[in-house]
Amino acid sequence: MINQERVWNRLFELSQFGKQERGGVTRISFTDEERKAKDLIALYMKEAGFVVTEDAVGNVIGRKEGRIEGAPAVIIGSHIDSVPHGGIFDGPLGVIAGIEVVQTIVEQEIETDHPIEVIAFTDEEGSRFRFGMIGSRAIAGTLNKEHLQNKDQNGVTIAQAMKEMGLDPNKILDAARDPGTIKGYVELHIEQGKVLENHHLSVGVVSGIAGPLWTKWVLTGEAGHAGATPMGIRKDPLIPAAAIIQYIETETKKYPNAVATIGQISVKPGGVNVIPSQVEFTLDLRDIDEEVRNKIEHTIVSYARQICEERKIEVDISTLQRVTPVPCSKEIRQVIENSCKEIGLETFTLPSGAGHDGMQFKDFCPIGMIFIQSKNGISHNPDEWSSKEDCGRGTTVLYKTVLELAK
Amino acid sequence: MINQERVWNRLFELSQFGKQERGGVTRISFTDEERKAKDLIALYMKEAGFVVTEDAVGNVIGRKEGRIEGAPAVIIGSHIDSVPHGGIFDGPLGVIAGIEVVQTIVEQEIETDHPIEVIAFTDEEGSRFRFGMIGSRAIAGTLNKEHLQNKDQNGVTIAQAMKEMGLDPNKILDAARDPGTIKGYVELHIEQGKVLENHHLSVGVVSGIAGPLWTKWVLTGEAGHAGATPMGIRKDPLIPAAAIIQYIETETKKYPNAVATIGQISVKPGGVNVIPSQVEFTLDLRDIDEEVRNKIEHTIVSYARQICEERKIEVDISTLQRVTPVPCSKEIRQVIENSCKEIGLETFTLPSGAGHDGMQFKDFCPIGMIFIQSKNGISHNPDEWSSKEDCGRGTTVLYKTVLELAK
Repeated sequence: MINQERVWNRLFELSQFGKQERGGVTRISFTDEERKAKDLIALYMKEAGFVVTEDAVGNVIGRKEGRIEGAPAVIIGSHIDSVPHGGIFDGPLGVIAGIEVVQTIVEQEIETDHPIEVIAFTDEEGSRFRFGMIGSRAIAGTLNKEHLQNKDQNGVTIAQAMKEMGLDPNKILDAARDPGTIKGYVELHIEQGKVLENHHLSVGVVSGIAGPLWTKWVLTGEAGHAGATPMGIRKDPLIPAAAIIQYIETETKKYPNAVATIGQISVKPGGVNVIPSQVEFTLDLRDIDEEVRNKIEHTIVSYARQICEERKIEVDISTLQRVTPVPCSKEIRQVIENSCKEIGLETFTLPSGAGHDGMQFKDFCPIGMIFIQSKNGISHNPDEWSSKEDCGRGTTVLYKTVLELAK
Repeated sequence: MINQERVWNRLFELSQFGKQERGGVTRISFTDEERKAKDLIALYMKEAGFVVTEDAVGNVIGRKEGRIEGAPAVIIGSHIDSVPHGGIFDGPLGVIAGIEVVQTIVEQEIETDHPIEVIAFTDEEGSRFRFGMIGSRAIAGTLNKEHLQNKDQNGVTIAQAMKEMGLDPNKILDAARDPGTIKGYVELHIEQGKVLENHHLSVGVVSGIAGPLWTKWVLTGEAGHAGATPMGIRKDPLIPAAAIIQYIETETKKYPNAVATIGQISVKPGGVNVIPSQVEFTLDLRDIDEEVRNKIEHTIVSYARQICEERKIEVDISTLQRVTPVPCSKEIRQVIENSCKEIGLETFTLPSGAGHDGMQFKDFCPIGMIFIQSKNGISHNPDEWSSKEDCGRGTTVLYKTVLELAK
């Protein structure tokens, strides 16, 4: 029913913004590339028959009214920002598939009772400010002015970046929606793991989303001349940092669902022949079970404090975000399963290790998620890939799910 | 015997050229500041009773003949260029102390068999062209025309900079000296480390000059999503990098004079929630014994290759520079030790972790070096400091050493 070719072509058309020489895209929030991508999404939305608006944080929202005035809306969402050197599916697929769902509904002259919205959320990834899901937080009404003080690597705050793109950071509360006006939230996304591939499946029903805990670690010692400072009198913070990084891996591997990643690391002052005075790194720690995650965190922090004390290195650990794992709505899961069955797909349930905008709707509205197979489980990488057919199957499941929820 | 006040006053008088608002000096090679500083040095030399010449690369040379015609000369040397925002002692102390030695000899009407020379070398630091020790290389006859093609940040080559200061780059070989005419080389320098300070000592006898080996390490694995990639299937190059960094410290600590520093580290792509695909770091490895340095290098590289192979991580190690360490002459070390004893100073031997002009005389003439205490080990910084008394003590040790070598 849906137009698989149109979905596929739009994925590639959108990927021109932030396209990288060696493949993949770098499309960071509040940049020209992101702006151009949003404009193209708005164009698709208009083509599909939506009324398009943009809210206070830059979420691009397409709305198609339903038959019943004042009925709560079914929201389809995802994001169009990417990590540096990311893939072309992570985010855009959900937005483009959402548009395709409504465009198909319009083309088939189907009427629904409930309004349907597609939202392209601002900055899900958090790559720039180490603070993500800005758009979905704003919708849920949980984004506040303090959050906007998070800075990027050049010291630019979210508030400043918003202003540069013509957005007023004082108006973020205007983006908050009344949960009474929303029936549910559905998102189609690539799995970003290998579970579906290992089971030779195209589509999966998501049981819940693992919560990421992001911490920033700053270890401070003492700079010195690389040639003139004997090993025994150094206070080089990179050595305990290296021990901590190794310990993190060893400890996390003890738990089957836990994952830990040091994605950023830098040293100051950064001369080849200067002993670092400071090392800073980030830790992304996740598990579907919050208790397990807390246990790993506690063990790592205890070890770090001990080793830093031994070496007279100051250690400062700050929380960038601590997200609670979010279960998906049983009702929406059931609708997704039925949609899979209808088109002859096996129903398979799996958790999401990655975070998604839907997490922000934990106490806001019921959520559901559909995964499609990722080739080799690769994501956040130019080699990220899903087949045209699986994009089509996922979009069809989304279409049937939304039709059922909005009927 | 020597005039401590004169040494101290000249250090400050010289520091007017290139003086910085916030303290310290910026005196880069082939600039007006450097020219004026050389002129003042030449004036001091004439006052001290030297015959002053300037050679093809701008080395300022003061010579006082000895009693025996044709006897090889004892050379005292150091440099008067500085790093940007450097201190006032690093370099100038050795030149001014050298002049003081001869001025004292002349004032005391002492005759030596051997001639004595003091040389203020051109561009030891290498700050401008990332290629240093130009003057000492020229004296040793190892400076060639290719070297003169090194460029500064504005694209100006050493050859062009020389021309601008009235020097002929085609004549650099004229600066080369016949090693048969030189008995030995002695230099007084600030330690630039904390070893003497930690031992509460004014003066140290240098055992040798450690040669820096600079390597760049690139470890390549596979990026992936921090949430959706189970620990067991990751190829994260930061984990073996952390193991290597720890191993480098452990291994280097086994050798008393060896030092190893990882001064730069970065990961790509650098997202909080992205498994790094690549980690790059630098290693600065030094020892005064080349065999020891080679042994450490070999052990570290073997370990790295093994651990990276186990984890299917590619490792690429490239050499940025490999400078041969230079041991100091046993005979000159003995003379320096005797000089220390004569004036009641403890004899304490330490390696030089930093590079010095004497390194260029490795296969040219025997060398000796005297260190004085640096406050807090700080150097290449406006806060670089040594006390007036320690400058005096170092100059006295230099005086007694040179008298013995030239007698």
